[in-house]
This record gives sequence, structure tokens and C-alpha cells, in this order.
Amino acid sequence: MSAGGKTVVLLACFGVRAEPWLAALSKAAPDFELRVWPDAGDKDEIDYVVVWAQPNGFLRQFPSLRAVLCIGAGVDRILEDTDLPKVPIARMRDEGLTQGMVEFVLARVLHYHRLMPAYEAQQRQGVWRQLAAPLARDRAVGVLGLGQLGAACAASLAANGFKVRGWSRTRKDLPGVQSFEGPLEAFLAPCEVVVCLLPLTPATRGVLNAATLSQLSGASLINVGRGAHLVEDDLIPALDAGHLANATLDVFATEPLVAGHPFWTDPRITVIPHASALTPPGTAGPTIVANIRRHLAGQDLLDLVDRAAGY
Amino acid sequence: MSAGGKTVVLLACFGVRAEPWLAALSKAAPDFELRVWPDAGDKDEIDYVVVWAQPNGFLRQFPSLRAVLCIGAGVDRILEDTDLPKVPIARMRDEGLTQGMVEFVLARVLHYHRLMPAYEAQQRQGVWRQLAAPLARDRAVGVLGLGQLGAACAASLAANGFKVRGWSRTRKDLPGVQSFEGPLEAFLAPCEVVVCLLPLTPATRGVLNAATLSQLSGASLINVGRGAHLVEDDLIPALDAGHLANATLDVFATEPLVAGHPFWTDPRITVIPHASALTPPGTAGPTIVANIRRHLAGQDLLDLVDRAAGY
Repeated sequence: MSAGGKTVVLLACFGVRAEPWLAALSKAAPDFELRVWPDAGDKDEIDYVVVWAQPNGFLRQFPSLRAVLCIGAGVDRILEDTDLPKVPIARMRDEGLTQGMVEFVLARVLHYHRLMPAYEAQQRQGVWRQLAAPLARDRAVGVLGLGQLGAACAASLAANGFKVRGWSRTRKDLPGVQSFEGPLEAFLAPCEVVVCLLPLTPATRGVLNAATLSQLSGASLINVGRGAHLVEDDLIPALDAGHLANATLDVFATEPLVAGHPFWTDPRITVIPHASALTPPGTAGPTIVANIRRHLAGQDLLDLVDRAAGY
Repeated sequence: MSAGGKTVVLLACFGVRAEPWLAALSKAAPDFELRVWPDAGDKDEIDYVVVWAQPNGFLRQFPSLRAVLCIGAGVDRILEDTDLPKVPIARMRDEGLTQGMVEFVLARVLHYHRLMPAYEAQQRQGVWRQLAAPLARDRAVGVLGLGQLGAACAASLAANGFKVRGWSRTRKDLPGVQSFEGPLEAFLAPCEVVVCLLPLTPATRGVLNAATLSQLSGASLINVGRGAHLVEDDLIPALDAGHLANATLDVFATEPLVAGHPFWTDPRITVIPHASALTPPGTAGPTIVANIRRHLAGQDLLDLVDRAAGY
């Protein structure tokens, strides 16, 4: 604590426009002193850092740091830091972020469920042919990861009639969702659409690969987790082999997806620029401020990251 | 009544494969005598006709006809008959048909809501750019027609968070749906997506035309009603003028859509071969049989058509 007794919060969101966050935080916390990296002032005065995609070792330079608050639901980029101070870390839980993800996932699942790629192909050929489509209740959708986002998407898919299977490290009890743990291969086999919303940890890195994808038959993949969940070199072979029919990728090993990458031009792949669900500063700013106030009052942060589990 | 005291039902669904219907009706009514047009036998023996898209005057040839049962939710093709006998007509109400329509409409509304045409265009150009998308609760969707299908779609859109406006001949009271009657122009103005599920009547024919569409600004149109609701020549001008950004058409003035029609190749238009929701014989066959048994027992048919209203 610092600057005339005021709580000092540093905004350090790399690759993200600072203005909307600064505006939202200022409005929610007129009593805090807000600083925006690189104008950190006296580093010893920084109490909290609101962070995204920081360089390695970045957080180590603030000796009085009390906690770190992430503006995203996935904290893998923070935890990859090999020189991370031992302060509490909170992930983002925001109703607008969750709802945005639910809407995106439902949009893409329904798109594949209702055979839209096949109808689009028929239209290009001028073909008028009705295709048999099952109802959602006869369509098995697998959701990998049942954290805040995965559980919300699974609930929405179930509410809209789909047969939902959920896969997570430990089995969950969610209404309308058949929950699984254990080997991914057995889980995937009956899935017609697969949604990846796992946290990125050493255990989930590369979990979508030639071996696991080979369990599928003509399925559609929607990766809204992290690029590194998918072994990208295994995707087009899985499409060519018919294990997958289509894929929507919102995340990539390298973002932005590099120019000339074959994903850009493969008609079976839909490339989304990491936009399935953006954290809205207007609601997430107040959430962060409320969490900091909670911590200042001596309580534990909400949505605390478990470093051992990696999320 | 006829053939040894048995109830005689004639299946006369023009343009529809008879086999699945015959199988479903036979299973549900082993005690009826089922005949399939053109093998009607003695026409005086026909008690009920299960019909689709009959030629004009077709139903007049059965002098003992007691009622007509339509395999579709829209009965406009039956009522267009200028020589229709004065027997009761039942439209189709089938949970599978309704659910199929709900899923299709939700798929297309979410597709436009989540700016998928813009992302697809960016992908074709290799552009990585996040676009601001509102949440469903900030997106106004207009549903034209609040009959069994329109009401179900409106309820589903509302349950998934959209701001739903419904327009019908007489104002309805549906939870989560702001209901309107009166001039279409005022209703349409705030709509960002418009779903047409009206019955086709003299009052609704051509209701989507240059004047009404001009109220919209960059909206998306989903026509799952009848082709004749839309003045087809007005569609591309409305797209060119920016009143509409996109359209999904499941129905056309002439079906199949004729080869070489500009709708086939306009990238803003998605052509679906009247497949948004097909009546499933497996559930609809038993529904028809149950309705006939009800009528045989002296009760009114369910889902009776009001000839004056036209649906």
C-alpha cells in the first residue's frame, strides 16, 4: 500500500486495449489509484495487478504485490510464468463472458447439427435436395471441460434438447449432462459434435490429437479452449480421414493465425479470430474491483486459481 | 363408411413419398383400411383423406368424405382449392415438426446474431479482426406469426436470451415475448433479425415487400413460412439497399427453386430446399390416427382449421 494510503492497482493487459478497462475500473473504484503499464510509477507501491499475457518474470518486479487478477477465464498464460510470485491469483468469472461463450457454442453446434455445411455445398452446386436431420435429442454433443464456461455451455445445450456428455478431470454432477472422467478415447467415440472448453494444463495440452480424434466418425469439432489443446498438424489429416467433417477454431497455437496457414483456406475449417467470447470491461471491471475490495477486507479472493491443478 | 364396416382412409400426399406414411398409419391403425392414391378403389367408400398439395377439385370426388387431415402445419395449399367440400380440416400439430422448426430457426438466428457471415468473409480474405457482438439480450428478433410454430420459436428465442417481438393478427400473451398487432412497418423497424412463420392467407401474401423491408436496417431475414409471403423480386434490391444484410430462404414461390434463379448464387442468400422442418411420419402418423378416432367417436377434430381466417 502506497501513495497516500490509497490502494494502487496496475493495469497490465498485453495485447488488449487499455482504455475500456481503465474507464470501467476508474468508475468502479474512484478511491483506488489506477496506473497503466508501462507507467507503473514506484513499483513498490503496486498492490494489485490486473493482467493479461504478461512477459515472463513481469509480476516479480512488484515487491509489495498482494494479488493478481486475470481478465480472462483461462489463466494458463499467467501460470506459464516461470518466475511467478507466490501471491493469490483470481480468474475472471463474468456473466457477460459466459453468456457470450454460450451463444457462440450454441450457434456453432446448431449450425453443424442442422447440416448447414452440406446445404451450403448443395447451394453452390445448385442442388435442391432435402437431407434427413435428426432432432437435437438424437444428437450426442461432447463438452470437454466443465468449468464455469464448459458447465454453462453444457447446460445450454441440454436445455436446447441435445444429448450432452461432459468430460472433466473429476466427474461433475450437472443436470441434463452425462458426466465422465477417465480416458478421452472412450468418451469421444459416440460424439457427433465435440466442444473443447478445457483449461490448458500440462495434462490437457495436445489432448486433441491423431489418436483421440480417430475415435470420431464424421464429427464436428469446436475448439474454444486454447490453441494448444489441439495438435494442429493432426487436424487436416483427421478431416481427410473422415474422423472429422468440419471444425470451428477460435484459438490457435500462434495468434493471430499466421498468413498462409492452411486453416485459412480449408473449406471445412471456420477460422474465428479468438472472438467467441470477449470479457466485457463494463461488467468485468466492477467484478475485479469487488474482488479486490473483498481481499482488502481480509477475505479470500473469489475464483481463486489452484496452482497445483493449473486452473 | 365402407368395406365391411371398416373406416377407410386414403393417403393422397402429392410430392411426398408414401411409404413412410403408409407404414406409420398402418402401425397406428391396423383396424382401418388404408388406401394410397391413385388406388382409391370405390371412391364412395373413402371416409378420410390424409392430404398434401392436392390438385384443384381433388377432394370433391369423394362423396362420403367426413374430414381432411393435412400432414403439414400450413394448410394454404388445401384452402386454395376452389372446389373444396365443406368437411372439417385438421392441420398437423406434431412435437417433432415443431422441435425441428425451433432448432432450425434458432440455428439461423444465432448464426446471424454472432456475425458469422462477416467472419466467413474475413476468413476468405485472410483477415484476423475481432468484431463487437452484442449479447442476445441486446438483440431484437421479430417473429411474424405466433401460431404453433411461431409461438414455439419465439419461446425458444426468448429462453435463449433474445429480445423477442411477436407480430400476429391478434395480439397474443406469450411469456418473454412482446406481442404486437397492427401495421407491420412499425413492428419491423427495430428488428435486427426477422423470422417469418405466418400462415399464408390473402392478408399475408406478399407481406414482405419493398415497402415493409425498407423499415429494416442491415437486418437478416429468415423465411420459413411460405414463398408467397415474400415478394421475391423485392429481395435483392432490399439487400442492395442495405435494409437487409442476409437472408435464409427455406420456401419459394416456385419449388424447387428454378435453376439459374439469382437466389442460388447471391452470397448473401442461403437457399434451403424446404427442409427447415419436415413432418416425421413416425410421430405424426399416430397423431393423425388419434384425431380420426376422436372424430369417429363424435368429437370435433383437434387443430381444426378456421376457413374464414385461412389457417
